[in-house]
Amino acid sequence: MSAFVAQSIQSKKMSDTKKTILITGGSGYVGTHTVLEFLQDGTYDVIVLDNSSNSIMEGLRRVEEMTGKKVPRYQVDLIDKQAIQGVFDKHKIFCVIHMASLKAVGESCKRPFFYYKANLFSAINLIEVMQENDVYNLIFSSSATVYGPPKVLPLVETLETGGCTNPYGRTKYFIENIFRDVCTVDPKWNMMFLRYFNPVGAHESGIIGEDPMGVPYNIMPFVAQVAVGRRQEVQVFGDDFDTPDGTGVRDYVHVVDLAKGHLAAMKKIEEKSDVQPKIYNLGTGTGISVLEIISAFEKYTGKKIPYKMAGRREGDVATMIADASKAGRELGWKTERGLKEMCETLWNFQSKNPYGYQGKEQQ
Amino acid sequence: MSAFVAQSIQSKKMSDTKKTILITGGSGYVGTHTVLEFLQDGTYDVIVLDNSSNSIMEGLRRVEEMTGKKVPRYQVDLIDKQAIQGVFDKHKIFCVIHMASLKAVGESCKRPFFYYKANLFSAINLIEVMQENDVYNLIFSSSATVYGPPKVLPLVETLETGGCTNPYGRTKYFIENIFRDVCTVDPKWNMMFLRYFNPVGAHESGIIGEDPMGVPYNIMPFVAQVAVGRRQEVQVFGDDFDTPDGTGVRDYVHVVDLAKGHLAAMKKIEEKSDVQPKIYNLGTGTGISVLEIISAFEKYTGKKIPYKMAGRREGDVATMIADASKAGRELGWKTERGLKEMCETLWNFQSKNPYGYQGKEQQ
Repeated sequence: MSAFVAQSIQSKKMSDTKKTILITGGSGYVGTHTVLEFLQDGTYDVIVLDNSSNSIMEGLRRVEEMTGKKVPRYQVDLIDKQAIQGVFDKHKIFCVIHMASLKAVGESCKRPFFYYKANLFSAINLIEVMQENDVYNLIFSSSATVYGPPKVLPLVETLETGGCTNPYGRTKYFIENIFRDVCTVDPKWNMMFLRYFNPVGAHESGIIGEDPMGVPYNIMPFVAQVAVGRRQEVQVFGDDFDTPDGTGVRDYVHVVDLAKGHLAAMKKIEEKSDVQPKIYNLGTGTGISVLEIISAFEKYTGKKIPYKMAGRREGDVATMIADASKAGRELGWKTERGLKEMCETLWNFQSKNPYGYQGKEQQ
Repeated sequence: MSAFVAQSIQSKKMSDTKKTILITGGSGYVGTHTVLEFLQDGTYDVIVLDNSSNSIMEGLRRVEEMTGKKVPRYQVDLIDKQAIQGVFDKHKIFCVIHMASLKAVGESCKRPFFYYKANLFSAINLIEVMQENDVYNLIFSSSATVYGPPKVLPLVETLETGGCTNPYGRTKYFIENIFRDVCTVDPKWNMMFLRYFNPVGAHESGIIGEDPMGVPYNIMPFVAQVAVGRRQEVQVFGDDFDTPDGTGVRDYVHVVDLAKGHLAAMKKIEEKSDVQPKIYNLGTGTGISVLEIISAFEKYTGKKIPYKMAGRREGDVATMIADASKAGRELGWKTERGLKEMCETLWNFQSKNPYGYQGKEQQ
């Protein structure tokens, strides 16, 4: 708690002229890259709220080192409404980017109660505190998973959502619905949902990147851990999907492009709009298969990636590809980093940080 | 708080041989009728948890008077997890029937945040406390609304759910999903969802019945309030539905039949079953239109019911009819009260209690 007090005193000296953005979950993978882009852009002041233990705060510490700027951060669990209020007491917040979320699909299937409680209580407490403090600008980190198994491709924002195949996805779907209903009845709300497709890669410096806990559920960090010798081989879950090579096809988006998407979204949310909520897919519009990922990684890094075929995982679908044209038109956002940069930056981070931020094998 | 303590001391003297059933929301419309059936049956001890103010507790007081039995009741808001634990500390609970819910469709459209927070936090807190106290039998009061706008009729339990047209419905749909995921991963859970169709009528004594707050959203209590002179005419919302007479068709189920359904469900939940959750429609399988309701009410009560046509309400669908055969087969439950009894018992209650339990016009 003393750290909390120290941070809050420090934070009182933030710029008086810049608007302050609160990023929940700002010490995570997408969070750190987004904080970095915001600090480098310089338009906004940024504060971070996260329930992570200090060891996991290493990513944000590195962002501070890279930029020479301090980021006020609060170790607050969003399940604790009073603690959220404490942060709002100390800062005049213009907009919240709500990224904080339990997000491991596999874990959510094993511990659904834990996921529902954490993600739903967090979202509901957060918007309640926002309302009580007259803060009505909200950007919510949603996910392509809200579309459920695609009936048509590419996935466009106007499609019906639902039919999600795992508890994690359902939490995102439920929260979108709650937020939509809330902003539909109260015109003070200004909300945006960003539906991430598959974030991959790392900052080009190799200083920050993804640091998954336990066995990665997603293919890219799995490949990188095999490349660095932490795991023997990649398991390819399903080779009998209705796709060109039989493996799952996803729309991978470079985390730096994704981070820049938040900056574009932030500038957009400052325009008043009657359309509530505004919803944008953040993807590239291009599908890449698991085998293409493995082969690209080998090509761009020179590392051999052994793999073996395994059965499908429950709930995995054949193909997810974004129609990302709306974000292009309305946010002026387009991705600039392709498969080459995804592989190279991931490998750059992984080879410099073979065991992630901890520097050793995690339990 | 002193009332709470007093009740808990009293409750320690419950029967040692009977299993104790906790009914959340037990002082409400379906709640009071269910408590009455359980007390009259005598197989189980019943305790009630409700956040209602004392004035609304009148229904439960009358049930005690009717049966000569005391029902331990706790004025606890399910948003307060510690207070729920307090009830579990005082009673060895065998099964929870979770009826407590905000349930006014129209209000939920105006105050969605209020609905989401109340209904979701309640459900999540309740099952967390149940888990922590090793209580794994749960009967959840769900609703036909989880089916969304019907694609086929009658509605059978195996149909896909979702696409609900209002926040109230979404809370029921979300909670079903949360509960389903939770019991899927933990075989200790023994869950049942009862999907109510449209509960109407009152106990034949006329002592307990429905006491809606404000303007009734549902047709039957609206008709009864017109009959008793509290309102001038019934508004019929929509006469251009694709139904025989153009007005909405619903599956009305007498509240005493519905209450008996809970007793049948309770006996069923004592059988071990691998199917989790067990889901039952509680309806009659017969559709009745709004105009048929009005004309039946006139016929069976001799009261003239003026009505006027009004536009459709958002989210209202043409027809909802249950396939109620599964509850018949597996619970041995079938409805015994038809439209005549629905009208007569409603009028009996309404004419004896023109302003409900309060005895005067409500604000």
